[in-house]
Amino acid sequence: MIGILGGGQLGRMLALAAAKLGFRTHLYSDETESCGFNVATEATRAHFGDEEALARFAAGCDVVTFEFENVPDATAHFLADHVPVAPNPNALATAQDRFIEKSFVAGLGIATAPFRNVMTEKDAKEAFAALGGPAVLKTRRLGYDGKGQRIVRSAEDCASAFGDFGRVPAILEKFVDFAFEASVVAARGRDGSFAVFDPPKNEHENHILRRSIVPSPLSEEGVRECFDIARAIAEALDYVGVLGVELFIGRNGEIAVNEIAPRVHNSGHWTMEACVVSQFEQHIRAVAGWPLGSCERHSNAVMENIIGAEVEAWQALAGRHAGLHIYGKRVVRPGRKMGHITRLAPPTKA
Amino acid sequence: MIGILGGGQLGRMLALAAAKLGFRTHLYSDETESCGFNVATEATRAHFGDEEALARFAAGCDVVTFEFENVPDATAHFLADHVPVAPNPNALATAQDRFIEKSFVAGLGIATAPFRNVMTEKDAKEAFAALGGPAVLKTRRLGYDGKGQRIVRSAEDCASAFGDFGRVPAILEKFVDFAFEASVVAARGRDGSFAVFDPPKNEHENHILRRSIVPSPLSEEGVRECFDIARAIAEALDYVGVLGVELFIGRNGEIAVNEIAPRVHNSGHWTMEACVVSQFEQHIRAVAGWPLGSCERHSNAVMENIIGAEVEAWQALAGRHAGLHIYGKRVVRPGRKMGHITRLAPPTKA
Repeated sequence: MIGILGGGQLGRMLALAAAKLGFRTHLYSDETESCGFNVATEATRAHFGDEEALARFAAGCDVVTFEFENVPDATAHFLADHVPVAPNPNALATAQDRFIEKSFVAGLGIATAPFRNVMTEKDAKEAFAALGGPAVLKTRRLGYDGKGQRIVRSAEDCASAFGDFGRVPAILEKFVDFAFEASVVAARGRDGSFAVFDPPKNEHENHILRRSIVPSPLSEEGVRECFDIARAIAEALDYVGVLGVELFIGRNGEIAVNEIAPRVHNSGHWTMEACVVSQFEQHIRAVAGWPLGSCERHSNAVMENIIGAEVEAWQALAGRHAGLHIYGKRVVRPGRKMGHITRLAPPTKA
Repeated sequence: MIGILGGGQLGRMLALAAAKLGFRTHLYSDETESCGFNVATEATRAHFGDEEALARFAAGCDVVTFEFENVPDATAHFLADHVPVAPNPNALATAQDRFIEKSFVAGLGIATAPFRNVMTEKDAKEAFAALGGPAVLKTRRLGYDGKGQRIVRSAEDCASAFGDFGRVPAILEKFVDFAFEASVVAARGRDGSFAVFDPPKNEHENHILRRSIVPSPLSEEGVRECFDIARAIAEALDYVGVLGVELFIGRNGEIAVNEIAPRVHNSGHWTMEACVVSQFEQHIRAVAGWPLGSCERHSNAVMENIIGAEVEAWQALAGRHAGLHIYGKRVVRPGRKMGHITRLAPPTKA
């Protein structure tokens, strides 16, 4: 029995991958309606602070994992006292705070955008003065899909964005002028084994992932560098499971880490069609202590998200040849990820 | 909400395919422990004759389908009075009786092994005299994986097999000396659209499917003939959903129908890895009234069943590169299908 915290589409696809391997799953979510509940063997609806519910959940699971990184620290540690938890709570804690995350990556000698911690308005102005513009102010915690971030072009701008965010701890990052965005999705097993999928090129619209394309335009050397980055991060975190690392690729092929997602990643959905073992199955294999499968891809792939009301036109969008995934969410909202489509083509060298 | 009668591995994989497309599923099984229950949204454990349970089940579903053909006639008709049912009860009735099935196929002008109906001991002897030996006596109903059939080499043999089977209605078929066995798995939509997967060569051991291999050694013309056979059968049955047709391929490429499975078929499991749309998804698409997906395969494939205690060695059997499916059955029995493995290779022309 594999416990999964969070009941969104990632939890849903993890539960389906677990079922393929013969595992039962128990989803724990604090939302009353979670699209993952329909496919899990067991479901708990409770707050992440409800220790009674957490203890019951932990007692019924052989291992617990997460479909998202914004699990409260206390929850992850509480669970880890009761049941094996993968990835470990420290990895989550590192990834859920942008300043700790960037400092950790920089500490490994891996490039990131230049950044400064911003705790006060004075910090905000000084950070902008130090880095220069344009820059991006981001809350240290809880941002996703562009929420909690703003481009700033002056010290005053920066200070006022800090105020608008409610003076919560933030990080200022120098704007990186990249050629394209990419990501690397990798898995590390309990035994330290490591496997990594081909890094896709990612295209965003309105700060939301629009599509992922493999192979990316990265050179062979660039791909190898992405692999090395993912491995260094996974090993330093003593990571078990799948993690995604979002990357900026510069005009001369230089690679900088944007952020770490300590979970399966939207840019890895194409692996469901183009690889025999998907990122979801790799994650389940890793947390269950099974040997990792091969990350080889047999085809080229383009994955496209179905966002908001687009879901009403899936039939026209997908056509007969695409791999279609609909998440079964009842409420359509602008910007909400409702499903995705993957198109395959015969393989070319990366 | 898609209702599925039967809770074995086929129901389980249908439920997983339905979830991929955003559907909820309700499994109805008369077994107390069904491996499909863990992945369905709702589950009913009740007898197929329990009209109260059937009515409740029907009321909660938008459409009902089957994972196996041995649903009592009365059950299928009762359900069809309450909710759309696909495939239709007459298609089930045709396929679940070997004599009706063979007569139906022969009536379409499609080759089968020569056969005779056997209702009495006298019939048994006369049938053998008419067909000559060796021949196979099979019960008309309820056989699978070699159960309820015996090779007979004399009229006396035939009569005594009939007695051993409890004098239930039977069929005598002349033994076909085939070069290999194949099958064709096809889908027909509510709108009459038709799609068909590449026919695999099938190898049996102890009357149980051991492996399916695509492409088969069939010629292009042979493949086309398989497609035509599947289409003729599906159209004549006004079939909606996926059906499998088991075939004998003679030494000169002549094709005879062995039997019709009015459901997803074990020899179609390779489509989960080698096609973007699997047989399970095609079935769900068809019964839901959606357009069928493409049946194109992007890879060659070999599917191998994991039978009985072999499941304990899945790790060694599968290796890193295989697509692994474990059905989550608690009890291991000799001959029981516990999972399967699919290996891919780059595509060659069929």
